[in-house]
Amino acid sequence: MSDKIKYFLEESKMPKTWYNIAADLPKPLSPVLHPGTLKPIGPDDLAPLFPMALIGQEVSQDREIEIPEPVREIYKQWRPSPLYRARKLEKALDTTAKIYYKYEGVSPTGSHKPNTAVAQAFFNKEEGTKKITTETGAGQWGSSLAFACSIFKIELDVYMVKVSYEQKPYRKMIMQTFGANCYASPSNRTPTGKAILEKDPNNTGSLGIAISEAVEMAAQDDHTKYSLGSVLNHVLMHQTIVGNEAIMQMEMADDYPDILVGCTGGGSNFSGLAFPFLGKKFREKKDIKVIACEPKSCPTLTKGKFAYDFGDTGMRTPLVKMHTLGSSFMPPSTHSGGLRYHGMAPLVSHLTDLGAIEPKAFGQKECFEAGVKFANAEGIVPAPEATHAVKGAIDAALECKKNGEKKTILFNLCGHGHFDMQAYGDYFNNKLSDDRYNEADANKALEKLPKIA
Amino acid sequence: MSDKIKYFLEESKMPKTWYNIAADLPKPLSPVLHPGTLKPIGPDDLAPLFPMALIGQEVSQDREIEIPEPVREIYKQWRPSPLYRARKLEKALDTTAKIYYKYEGVSPTGSHKPNTAVAQAFFNKEEGTKKITTETGAGQWGSSLAFACSIFKIELDVYMVKVSYEQKPYRKMIMQTFGANCYASPSNRTPTGKAILEKDPNNTGSLGIAISEAVEMAAQDDHTKYSLGSVLNHVLMHQTIVGNEAIMQMEMADDYPDILVGCTGGGSNFSGLAFPFLGKKFREKKDIKVIACEPKSCPTLTKGKFAYDFGDTGMRTPLVKMHTLGSSFMPPSTHSGGLRYHGMAPLVSHLTDLGAIEPKAFGQKECFEAGVKFANAEGIVPAPEATHAVKGAIDAALECKKNGEKKTILFNLCGHGHFDMQAYGDYFNNKLSDDRYNEADANKALEKLPKIA
Repeated sequence: MSDKIKYFLEESKMPKTWYNIAADLPKPLSPVLHPGTLKPIGPDDLAPLFPMALIGQEVSQDREIEIPEPVREIYKQWRPSPLYRARKLEKALDTTAKIYYKYEGVSPTGSHKPNTAVAQAFFNKEEGTKKITTETGAGQWGSSLAFACSIFKIELDVYMVKVSYEQKPYRKMIMQTFGANCYASPSNRTPTGKAILEKDPNNTGSLGIAISEAVEMAAQDDHTKYSLGSVLNHVLMHQTIVGNEAIMQMEMADDYPDILVGCTGGGSNFSGLAFPFLGKKFREKKDIKVIACEPKSCPTLTKGKFAYDFGDTGMRTPLVKMHTLGSSFMPPSTHSGGLRYHGMAPLVSHLTDLGAIEPKAFGQKECFEAGVKFANAEGIVPAPEATHAVKGAIDAALECKKNGEKKTILFNLCGHGHFDMQAYGDYFNNKLSDDRYNEADANKALEKLPKIA
Repeated sequence: MSDKIKYFLEESKMPKTWYNIAADLPKPLSPVLHPGTLKPIGPDDLAPLFPMALIGQEVSQDREIEIPEPVREIYKQWRPSPLYRARKLEKALDTTAKIYYKYEGVSPTGSHKPNTAVAQAFFNKEEGTKKITTETGAGQWGSSLAFACSIFKIELDVYMVKVSYEQKPYRKMIMQTFGANCYASPSNRTPTGKAILEKDPNNTGSLGIAISEAVEMAAQDDHTKYSLGSVLNHVLMHQTIVGNEAIMQMEMADDYPDILVGCTGGGSNFSGLAFPFLGKKFREKKDIKVIACEPKSCPTLTKGKFAYDFGDTGMRTPLVKMHTLGSSFMPPSTHSGGLRYHGMAPLVSHLTDLGAIEPKAFGQKECFEAGVKFANAEGIVPAPEATHAVKGAIDAALECKKNGEKKTILFNLCGHGHFDMQAYGDYFNNKLSDDRYNEADANKALEKLPKIA
């Protein structure tokens, strides 16, 4: 029996393709609808916002999609990322389970986000994009796209959710270091932002609002495109290099997960790890329990409705069928800014609806408690978002202990908390507010959902 | 010709020994003197502060010292660290030189410091130490020792230089996350701290003061030892795993450095990379130019005196011969807290005196400018301290360009700047004060040097 703690894949074995779960879905995804006609949209409807290569990936049914060689060259700066066996955490929990984690914090900006940022910047560059607009919650996405745009020399405007803009100044500075412009959202630069600030000058922002602002700015200009860090099919697909690597690394460990855990905001880090394993489940009947961990303050999968809704607050995006709390719902401000989105990726929602994914919601205090326990055992301080996955994995391991089961658990540690230490400070100083999910507010927002047969 | 950018050593090839340059010095180091008797000190004099294993390493003449297996197991969490070819930086500079960098930011706390923190915690644990006291400048060392003490279940008190304690709250929180106690220095907990605060309540602290406080607390208690993050021979030696790995990685690249660059505060990251190469120079006559980069605000090697001095402000440590600005010199506060020390490691000072090391001093603005250039080319934001090495490497590359020389440059990127983004913010907002080295103050401090024949 090996006592290894790190499974490091050779660079030469880095996957050359992304995995597209659309090819293996037991039931196809519901179509994306045009907000005006309510008819399924076509590539031309998306062309003002995205380069054609990405639109093609969004609707592709091919199982494997090649990762372009220039993208792989950039990935090699930090990929393949390590897979760890959490032996010290297992010991601290005195569990019968084995715990592994894939660690995406080794990337230049400390999270999984560069996996898709680099790909999106590359395809945009190929098609002549001069400028990209985007939104960011906690700033993980904005800083990652800033890193990617710096490589490809594309100008970048980032609309950052105001509460995070103020709470996490380091993220803003890292974007600036990479040459990007970063604006607090809602801003006075866009019609949506202006309208919101007129009604509520102290609005702390949300991902839904920031998306509206970024989309508006991109739609105005032929050489400006829009980029999203999660939710969309092609974004989730770019993250599957995580799971493709993990499958090989679990083989190196001569093991296979019984339980897979990830945290879900828009769904991208979760899908990146889970989809390749779910694909094996669908194709090879390899059983696996897949747990999606979300915050109690924004419980999209556990309390939302599976229905057609807008991706943004300004109701400018196409309509997608997803788990949603309503596009006008304003999630309370927490330190897990990256999980603060009213909706969920259509693919994750669809798979949850099919029973392939089991959602769980956690409060932020219990998540930070799990994060501190993990840091003391494994030496890595998880990002606030990632503490939800840590909490889910620890709970699963304790369940195994209770039942004397020797199960194998694998979770995605999607980022480190270096830029979010204020959150840990607030936790230690008992300043963390409890999760103030307002069900009445969500119900009101859900009543405003577009009526679609 | 390979176009690789990353040279990754297999875990099985991780060095099993540290390199002790004492074995290869052309001229032996001057002895350490007892501050009372002015006679060379013996192991018993150091026993109240350090475990015997480390005292043995401090004076050892053996060329190779074995890295204990439990220490290597912990190293494997992040080691071997990658060596990169900075192809994008070379292109941005349009230089004829080749630039490589060893990247120590992959460690759990983001710098080279855990290399010695883990070793020191291990040897302390072996000899029954219950508690360790230490000082920290920017917090890189304190957070690294907190990480190591968390693994070995040793209590830790950290005296953090006040200006950094206030400037870099994230570092304090990461120490807290790892279970350490962190106090702003000068503090009211120690005689030295109290005396300084009485005279100057707004004193912003210095490494010299923080060392006095930590040493005082350790000397009071049999089960409490003291730990230093740089300067001492054994600390520098623990860092040589960096250079030992780099030698193998340069072989993988089928190349060898003509010029080696590192930044120097106490001297540990610099020595970690440079000593194994200097050893080859002394033994095999392999020529190499070694550049030590220090801040103009605290120019120990370029403007200090090579003389016997105290390691601390309180004049409690033994006397060592080193380049010093005087133990009572108070360096101005800059963002490179880790380089803000009145002295320099005796080994680095000695080798500089012998002409084996060439020191250069840089201002903080030009260093941040180099750091931003590096980040935009290579995607990694360097720690403020590390920007000095970046600046030194860029200058060397531009010199090669001017002369049309195809030299090979290797520098140590000893840490990332994730916890120091405020410094970049201040740089962008033109808030960085210029380097206010006060030569008159240093001269006054130098007059107070102990008179030793």
